[in-house]
Amino acid sequence: MMDKIVSLARRRGFVFPSSEIYGGLGSAYDYGHYGVLLKENVRARWLEAMVREREDIVALDSSLILHPRVWEASGHVEGFTDPLVDCRTCKRRYRADHLDEAQCGKRPSKKPGEISDCDLTEPRQFNLMFKTRVGAVEETGVDVYLRPETAQGIFINFKNVAQLARRKPPFGIAQVGKAFRNEITPGNFIFRTLEFEQMEMEFFVPPDSADEWYRYWLDQRYGWHRRYGIRESHLRIRPHDADELSHYSSGTSDIEYLFPIGWSELEGVANRGDFDLRQHTEQSGTKLEWVDAGTGERFVPHVIEPALGLNRSLLAFLIDSYDEEVVGENERTVLRLHPALAPVKAAVLPLIGKNADMVAKARSLFEELRLDAQVEYDDSGAIGRRYRRQDEIGTPFAFTVDEQTLADDTVTVRDRDSLGQERIALAQVRAHLTDALRQPWSSPKQ
Amino acid sequence: MMDKIVSLARRRGFVFPSSEIYGGLGSAYDYGHYGVLLKENVRARWLEAMVREREDIVALDSSLILHPRVWEASGHVEGFTDPLVDCRTCKRRYRADHLDEAQCGKRPSKKPGEISDCDLTEPRQFNLMFKTRVGAVEETGVDVYLRPETAQGIFINFKNVAQLARRKPPFGIAQVGKAFRNEITPGNFIFRTLEFEQMEMEFFVPPDSADEWYRYWLDQRYGWHRRYGIRESHLRIRPHDADELSHYSSGTSDIEYLFPIGWSELEGVANRGDFDLRQHTEQSGTKLEWVDAGTGERFVPHVIEPALGLNRSLLAFLIDSYDEEVVGENERTVLRLHPALAPVKAAVLPLIGKNADMVAKARSLFEELRLDAQVEYDDSGAIGRRYRRQDEIGTPFAFTVDEQTLADDTVTVRDRDSLGQERIALAQVRAHLTDALRQPWSSPKQ
Repeated sequence: MMDKIVSLARRRGFVFPSSEIYGGLGSAYDYGHYGVLLKENVRARWLEAMVREREDIVALDSSLILHPRVWEASGHVEGFTDPLVDCRTCKRRYRADHLDEAQCGKRPSKKPGEISDCDLTEPRQFNLMFKTRVGAVEETGVDVYLRPETAQGIFINFKNVAQLARRKPPFGIAQVGKAFRNEITPGNFIFRTLEFEQMEMEFFVPPDSADEWYRYWLDQRYGWHRRYGIRESHLRIRPHDADELSHYSSGTSDIEYLFPIGWSELEGVANRGDFDLRQHTEQSGTKLEWVDAGTGERFVPHVIEPALGLNRSLLAFLIDSYDEEVVGENERTVLRLHPALAPVKAAVLPLIGKNADMVAKARSLFEELRLDAQVEYDDSGAIGRRYRRQDEIGTPFAFTVDEQTLADDTVTVRDRDSLGQERIALAQVRAHLTDALRQPWSSPKQ
Repeated sequence: MMDKIVSLARRRGFVFPSSEIYGGLGSAYDYGHYGVLLKENVRARWLEAMVREREDIVALDSSLILHPRVWEASGHVEGFTDPLVDCRTCKRRYRADHLDEAQCGKRPSKKPGEISDCDLTEPRQFNLMFKTRVGAVEETGVDVYLRPETAQGIFINFKNVAQLARRKPPFGIAQVGKAFRNEITPGNFIFRTLEFEQMEMEFFVPPDSADEWYRYWLDQRYGWHRRYGIRESHLRIRPHDADELSHYSSGTSDIEYLFPIGWSELEGVANRGDFDLRQHTEQSGTKLEWVDAGTGERFVPHVIEPALGLNRSLLAFLIDSYDEEVVGENERTVLRLHPALAPVKAAVLPLIGKNADMVAKARSLFEELRLDAQVEYDDSGAIGRRYRRQDEIGTPFAFTVDEQTLADDTVTVRDRDSLGQERIALAQVRAHLTDALRQPWSSPKQ
């Protein structure tokens, strides 16, 4: 299944390996036209749900390179590490906690876990943060890190934002942006890459309501994935066991998706307590707490964090929407994406690309529709092939200008999922599309 | 003037220094709620003009960390440097080509250029790229760079994208994303920062039409800044002199904006010739050229590049829209932003925040309007103060629910720029706002 997704993603230019002409750079991917449009839409739906549809969350975009002490306070300098072992025989390096998935570098086998003959060193801890240096020259420079998560940029701005936004807890701060992790075992296409985009929201609450808000956000976030079409049977909530929990967390659950590699984390929702604000207060000397100017009441808020990888979310949407079916004598591949996620909302097609009258009507319709939405005009080749292409990129609607259009100014609307066709007046197409894109939608594959 | 912008940006939470609780990290800024919304809008208007409104440009999002050979081919490893000199007396470091703006570190003066007493070393070249290392450990890692521009990610994907997008030149590839430059003299607020966002588009054309497309894009890009409200008197086009031109460029012009620091580059439009595609062809062994499958015609396209800094563009919009005026007995500060850029499109205000009936009507209107646009509800304090706050963040419209609303279901619409007020029916507000946001707009300060 993953192969099919990778193949479609490449064939249609959603996602392909980065720096390919130079032989690639392990686990790095570039997003082509439809990939960018899809990613923009996932991002926009998240921001909408977090910021536009709410009054209790504000947006933030913090620097990617933060002051290095941020990562001391957060514990990343000391603790954000993987235990690695070297094999003295085959010279390969393995994650000590993933030896059961490893393979001997000398005698690779189809079965993982075959490194029993290796002569392994004791595990050593390697930090996963990328380090670089700010300042033009070595002597005067400062070592800094590429952020491994966006969350810390939120915590250190807590006081600033709370004042500026005139908010009192419960309120949240949401951020989308790149993060970097120097993992030695990235892989599975865009499931885990060195460079990725996070969508994180930190929700600051009075300590005594933290549990309640934790359950609230778990529910909200589960609902978001469902709202945009992920099937119920492919989603589950898995609370972390006591031994998986960070020492500061009183509760964390993964919203897991049934990826082709098995149930894996799609989004994490964590009750982080007051750990982060306390750590930064201690390290910076700036009190990160809530003080009510009127009553003098003060407390250190607890934090509920839903954290989602944008690229991983995009992957889940690709997988979940992917479908193959036989239509008549033909097979088709179709992405049954939620219309609000679909890279292209509608295609405008003259039935016969060489018919000037059809082309003129279709062009004029296209010019009208593009005022509201991302739409495509295509007059190349056979109509069936053009439909298939739109199916593969998940375009929910196609408007076709044919002989009858020239007679009565109606066009056919083709529905991507049902393949149903109806005729509507040319003059009504724009309103029809706007309405159709606003309708509640659920995957036909529930 | 810059002080006023910096102050407003901080006061209203558009932009503020990063990592402040740890003492900051020179020339790094974080974007707060309205800053994020404004930045998102500038970005969206650029993407719209480049991608949605055109059929000859596709989007791309390439990795931030590319294969290191990309930067050898592009000439950045060798040539992307600043000449620096050290002073043996005051121990400071200066850019050798900017000594007339420098100050002695021991005896600072109000006049720049006062380093004549310094005992300077010969200039040395320092590369402006940030370096880091991919791979979990030192021995097996690979040195890589954070991209100093997004353009190279486009060039190396030329063949891929041209095939996928079924495009023949002239066509373009557009990209928005972070870039990093380890400059020793960043500054002037967000005019120049170590970390910034670029919006670059590479337009590939047949060699014999390169000059024509160069003029076309200069004109288009100039028009874009004007379209979103930058005043004509604050914009000019400055062609590079022969000695400023890159050796490969047959023409480059800066679209300059009259920043408070004087006329400075806002956007660059360059005719890069076939330099980049030829360099990557030579280094990678992959032929980056256009081949017509039908006729067999082949050529290496020339490239026209409009390149704009998102943060710098945002700064220009802030400066150009900033206004102060006396209204009756009061002064007000107002951002006369184009409605399509304004972070918040409308405010919904009950005249008296404690009047439950007004609040109920206002809330209901707010809930309706937020379906289409970023709007705010505010019932705190005196109405005048609430208007002032919306003026300062550039909200073009305010809908106020007052006594009369309770009697006849009409509200007042207040226009940010003219301060004109009119009454319209509650039921028409949503359509009124949608229409108003679609109207062509020009700055009242032309």
